Amino acid sequence: MKKYDKVVKNAAGRLVPTIINGEEHIPYQGVGKYKPTGRKHAPSISSCADYPADGNKTLSSLKEALIKAGLKDGMTISSHHHFRNGDLIAKQVFDIAHEMGVKDLRWYPSASFPCQADLIKYLEDGTINRIEGSMNGPLGKFTSEGKMKGMSILRSHGGRYQAIQDGEVQIDIAIIAAPTADAFGNATGDRGPAACGLLGFALGDSQYADKVIVVTDNLVPFPCIPWQIHGNYVDYVVVVDKVGLPERIVSGTTQITKSPDRLLIAEMTAQFCDEAEIIKDGFSYQAGAGGTALSIGNYFRDILKDRGWKARFIRAGSNKYPVQMLEEGLVDYILDGQTFDLEGVRSMRENAGHVNTSPFTSYNYHGKGNFASMVDVVILGATEVDVDFNANVVTHSDGYLLHGIGGWQNCLFAKTTIIPIPLFRDRMPVILDEVTTLCGPGELIDVIVTERGIAINPLRKDLLEKMKNSSLPIKTIHELKGEAERICGKPEKPALSDEFVSVIKWVDGTVIDAVRKV
Amino acid sequence: MKKYDKVVKNAAGRLVPTIINGEEHIPYQGVGKYKPTGRKHAPSISSCADYPADGNKTLSSLKEALIKAGLKDGMTISSHHHFRNGDLIAKQVFDIAHEMGVKDLRWYPSASFPCQADLIKYLEDGTINRIEGSMNGPLGKFTSEGKMKGMSILRSHGGRYQAIQDGEVQIDIAIIAAPTADAFGNATGDRGPAACGLLGFALGDSQYADKVIVVTDNLVPFPCIPWQIHGNYVDYVVVVDKVGLPERIVSGTTQITKSPDRLLIAEMTAQFCDEAEIIKDGFSYQAGAGGTALSIGNYFRDILKDRGWKARFIRAGSNKYPVQMLEEGLVDYILDGQTFDLEGVRSMRENAGHVNTSPFTSYNYHGKGNFASMVDVVILGATEVDVDFNANVVTHSDGYLLHGIGGWQNCLFAKTTIIPIPLFRDRMPVILDEVTTLCGPGELIDVIVTERGIAINPLRKDLLEKMKNSSLPIKTIHELKGEAERICGKPEKPALSDEFVSVIKWVDGTVIDAVRKV
Repeated sequence: MKKYDKVVKNAAGRLVPTIINGEEHIPYQGVGKYKPTGRKHAPSISSCADYPADGNKTLSSLKEALIKAGLKDGMTISSHHHFRNGDLIAKQVFDIAHEMGVKDLRWYPSASFPCQADLIKYLEDGTINRIEGSMNGPLGKFTSEGKMKGMSILRSHGGRYQAIQDGEVQIDIAIIAAPTADAFGNATGDRGPAACGLLGFALGDSQYADKVIVVTDNLVPFPCIPWQIHGNYVDYVVVVDKVGLPERIVSGTTQITKSPDRLLIAEMTAQFCDEAEIIKDGFSYQAGAGGTALSIGNYFRDILKDRGWKARFIRAGSNKYPVQMLEEGLVDYILDGQTFDLEGVRSMRENAGHVNTSPFTSYNYHGKGNFASMVDVVILGATEVDVDFNANVVTHSDGYLLHGIGGWQNCLFAKTTIIPIPLFRDRMPVILDEVTTLCGPGELIDVIVTERGIAINPLRKDLLEKMKNSSLPIKTIHELKGEAERICGKPEKPALSDEFVSVIKWVDGTVIDAVRKV
Repeated sequence: MKKYDKVVKNAAGRLVPTIINGEEHIPYQGVGKYKPTGRKHAPSISSCADYPADGNKTLSSLKEALIKAGLKDGMTISSHHHFRNGDLIAKQVFDIAHEMGVKDLRWYPSASFPCQADLIKYLEDGTINRIEGSMNGPLGKFTSEGKMKGMSILRSHGGRYQAIQDGEVQIDIAIIAAPTADAFGNATGDRGPAACGLLGFALGDSQYADKVIVVTDNLVPFPCIPWQIHGNYVDYVVVVDKVGLPERIVSGTTQITKSPDRLLIAEMTAQFCDEAEIIKDGFSYQAGAGGTALSIGNYFRDILKDRGWKARFIRAGSNKYPVQMLEEGLVDYILDGQTFDLEGVRSMRENAGHVNTSPFTSYNYHGKGNFASMVDVVILGATEVDVDFNANVVTHSDGYLLHGIGGWQNCLFAKTTIIPIPLFRDRMPVILDEVTTLCGPGELIDVIVTERGIAINPLRKDLLEKMKNSSLPIKTIHELKGEAERICGKPEKPALSDEFVSVIKWVDGTVIDAVRKV
């Protein structure tokens, strides 16, 4: 089977395949342009007559569960990444598959991490045909070099739920590693020796997969409360010694930046939000867990505190900073999609105002609305931005695919999207004529904040008007690009092959761009 | 269209129609015998592009919402009964339908109550073709008299969810009256001026209906926490002056019985459970909100307290008695399906151990298991029992259909099912040769407790063995029937027409019995 076929130019002017791994996909048609017409995926109807009346679904091993679930060639196996770089279970699944001689699996993780680099050997020997999901680090590099047998497909968190819900990806076996569970399969992430906070990334898997296996190292008597995952969706429960390494849940930067440039960018961003009257009593925001974003959150906190205001909610990736704000009464709710540190886990367990969300509630574009578009301001990162405000979040300027999309695309629907980035990294300008990989259409990106100036998207006349007398260095995107090039020189485009190794889905399941082999 | 057609004898020996309201239904095949083979109902895929980005789905009136939802002849309209006899919204929906000249609607309530007796006029004039759902009181009487144009179908709470999930009943418009909601449609029952506790009966409606309307009298800023109903399933939100009468949520008896006979039955039941070693540290039970059941719960409480034991969970219909046990530390969790008094509402709002459940988690027979079969002992009522331990819960001995099934059928799957009933009511024996209407197959009913003796189902050899030296009056069901007949005389069968007016579904969607016109 060809990895891909029938390349067309999509509405963003990008060349993308429309046959991928033998299946038909729709090219990107513009923001809000593609209208789905079908029905949601309909799982088979089960019967209680086929499940133990006493609710005890435990089996003796993961292997037994995989055999009972009917593991065979060509199946789709899903997993979640709430343990982040402390995952222990996904690898075991493929060890067993390899031992059983099963081939050509599609792995559908919500994200993969460097701790899963061992799986490269199974990508090489054909146990795994391809990964459809974010690939952070080594697996991304492997993909970039064209070594994956199948074609990888990257989706946002919301796009992953959408693909499951719409039946675009039918999961045969979902593996849900759970810090606490009961024998019926009710499961929670907020407690237990390997507590990771929540299990929202596995929600869609539980609802729509054919077979669902919960793996835990902390079996409690029924009922496991809270039941973030409903046992009513679960087929088998397996108890293992250790389900994850909680100390490695904290991955990436979750400390406020100390870099003077980044602190400056953070301060400028906060001042911008203040002057543009985005920050107000009852406002809402989402800022990531990177150093700059955390620092911006800190400025927001100071402003709220000084003025006696309160945010209505913070959308998170939570960590100790929003938790502190919740506990200080500076925000009513944290609507949390994943916990980035153990303070986040604790707060979610203890505080009814720290609320468990999922890609269904927050990001699914094929729902009756979602939370992302209700957020007043979202602060996002990017590897590259271009003069049309398009942004890239998955490839570096050398073309290597090293990051997942996460909730990034979904968050672009916030009322205001701000990307605070340094004007150059390692003497490579970050603002280009055209991004290497298109992940976010410029029309959804409102403001670029750099240490040398702030560019407002011309579409946002309201913001331009509000900031016209600002003391902040408001410039055009072309001016910013010019400054970077004066300092670093005009960057050369990376020398990439014509061959595609991966495609990037837009939030509605259409193909927005393809990633080329390095 | 004929109301019904193709009458066959089902596996319980009952004559039942297999064509009902023009649609094909499967006759009952025995407990656990019918295996579904299809797929769940697949709702249309939505797109956020069709919903307001700011999340504001409010419309100015219920009428506007019904028009936007496309209300037209022949549609299925659903509602929930968490306000019990204090519902104010269902009637308004049909007032509007009548005003618009819409005809032949199928009303699919989770239950109807005497406060909805006004709807009889719409059943008469053809606005409503039929009710599929429990009918308590006047609407049941109307049905029994053969006056409903269509054929009514009664389902248990679990059966109602199953029918929605399986696509047997496709809801066009779900009306969800909510004590608190936000403009996005997130809704909760546990707070607000008309707080009714929870909204679990509307869960399936929200997930599977084509259009979902949330009606509230307490609109709060996003996010409404907790979100018992997810706004992501909701199309429109309507604000009204008053959504329900909380003082009428308390309907039926929710006081401990004072009748000496019933107190005796309660005491015997508790003693039976104790001697049979059903009550133990960590056990679980479900007892209804009737006076006898409450009294039994009180005895259980005393036993736990005396011995320093703790129940793991109480399945409820909650009221002040289990709430008190939760607060005294005599039970870890209340797994609550509906609140029967305002103490239940308060507890659900305040206590994380008082957990919101739904027919999906608790009762859906077409899930991967449900909670009902994990309960150690369930205490249920019945209008009639027969010598094969079959029971009736919907018709009186005069044949009138005056009660809904509720969760009764679903609860029969508990490890032990006990029916404590007086041996006769108004000098009518309660134990008969054959029940008027078969709701629960005898093989699932383990013990009948009357004031004059206890009958154990011969299938439960373990219980017979355990009780063989008991001081309790253990008798055969025939002995009990004989005693009643010695006192009251042999009861005459009610004189009923051959015409059917309603059918009773079993938990798996098959037809277990039909109700005859009086």
